[in-house]
Amino acid sequence: MRFGSSLQSARMRGRGRLITIEGVDGAGKTTLAAGLQRALADAGVPVQLLREPGGVGASEAIRSLVKDPTLNVGARAEALLYAAARAQLVEEALEPTLAAGRWVLLDRFVDSSLAYQGGGRGLGITAVRELNLFATGGLTPDRTLLLTLDPASAQARADARGQAPDRLEQGGAEFFERIAAAYRQLAAEEPARFRVLNAQRPPAEVLDQAMSALADLTQPAA
Amino acid sequence: MRFGSSLQSARMRGRGRLITIEGVDGAGKTTLAAGLQRALADAGVPVQLLREPGGVGASEAIRSLVKDPTLNVGARAEALLYAAARAQLVEEALEPTLAAGRWVLLDRFVDSSLAYQGGGRGLGITAVRELNLFATGGLTPDRTLLLTLDPASAQARADARGQAPDRLEQGGAEFFERIAAAYRQLAAEEPARFRVLNAQRPPAEVLDQAMSALADLTQPAA
Repeated sequence: MRFGSSLQSARMRGRGRLITIEGVDGAGKTTLAAGLQRALADAGVPVQLLREPGGVGASEAIRSLVKDPTLNVGARAEALLYAAARAQLVEEALEPTLAAGRWVLLDRFVDSSLAYQGGGRGLGITAVRELNLFATGGLTPDRTLLLTLDPASAQARADARGQAPDRLEQGGAEFFERIAAAYRQLAAEEPARFRVLNAQRPPAEVLDQAMSALADLTQPAA
Repeated sequence: MRFGSSLQSARMRGRGRLITIEGVDGAGKTTLAAGLQRALADAGVPVQLLREPGGVGASEAIRSLVKDPTLNVGARAEALLYAAARAQLVEEALEPTLAAGRWVLLDRFVDSSLAYQGGGRGLGITAVRELNLFATGGLTPDRTLLLTLDPASAQARADARGQAPDRLEQGGAEFFERIAAAYRQLAAEEPARFRVLNAQRPPAEVLDQAMSALADLTQPAA
C-alpha cells in the first residue's frame, strides 16, 4: 500500500479530496465505501462518508420524496429533485468539509444522474449535465471509482437481497443497459478522473484496487 | 365584457389557454384567480384553477418541503425544487388539460422563479430560465397577468393577514425590491404576453381589467 505519512501531511497542506463511488445497485458501492473509510482512516486520512441523495436534512427529505412509490415523479422532475438534493449537499456539507481539509467519500454524485436520468431515462447526458453544473457550481470529484458488473449479476445480487424494487429499479433490462452504457461513456471521456473496478472480484480485492487508485491523490490539491 | 359565444366555439376548435397570475404575496393573486375562474365559467370557458408549487401529488409534497422552516434550503436547491414541482405539474396536469381544450388559470409559474430565485436570490434570470426550460419543455403562458403593488402596501397587506412570514418572505425590503424589479423587466421584455394590473385598485376593477386583458384569446390557439 502506497499510503502513509504523506497523506497526513497532505491534509495539513490543503483542500480535502472528493472521491465518488458509482455503479448500478448491487455492484457493491456500500461495501466498498465502508471498507475505504476504514482503510483511509487507518492510513491517517480524515474522511467523511456520505451518500446521495441525502447527507443533510433537506436532501434526506428529498430522498424520501423521490423514493415514495405512491407519488408520480416523471423523468424531468426526478432529475431536478436529485439536482436539488445535490445542491444542498454541496453547499451544506461538501464544500465546508473539503475546505476544512477533510476528504469526502461519496456514494453516488453527478455521474449517477448522467447515467440514470441522462442515459437510463433518455433525457440526454448534455441536458442533465447542465442542470448539475448549476446545482454543484462545478464541483468535480478528484477521483471516481466506477464499479462494473454484468447486468445478470447485478440482477442476481438485487434479487438475493430480497428487496422490492423501488421506482427507479423497475425500468427493466434495457433501462439498466442504457445506464451501463452511459457509465462506460463517461469513464471513457474522463480517463484521468475515472477508475473502473471489476465488481465481480472478491470485496477485499476490489478494496485493494480502490486504495491503489487513490494513491496519487496524496499530493496537495490545487 | 367582450366574452361570449365565441369562447364556447374556441374551446371546441383547439388547445386550451394557459393564463398565469404573478406578483408578490399580498398583491391579491388568490382573489383575482377565484374571480377569474367564476367570470370565465360564466362566459362559457371551461377553466381549471391550479397553484404553484403544487397542483399534483409530488408537487404538493415538494411545496411542503420547500416551505418547511426546519430545513435548510439554499438558493440553488430552492430554484431546483420549484423547477421539479413545475416539471411534474406540466407533465401531469397542464399539458393534458390544455390538450383537452380546457383553459388553466395558474397562480404563479416560471416568472415567479425568475423573479424570486433569479432576481430576489441573485441567481440570475438567465440561469434560472435555463432550468425552467428543461422543467417545462418550453411551455409558455398565453397571457400573464402581473399584479403590481408598491412594497409598503404589500408589507401592510401581509401584516394584516397576521401570517408569520415563511422562509421566502424573510428576505427583507431589498429582497422584495429585487423581485419587483425583475418582474418589471420580464414584463418589459414580453409586452405581448404580459399585462400589468395595478393591484391597489378595488378587486372588482382589477377583475374587470383582467377579463379585458384576456378577451383577444378567444381566437383559437395556434
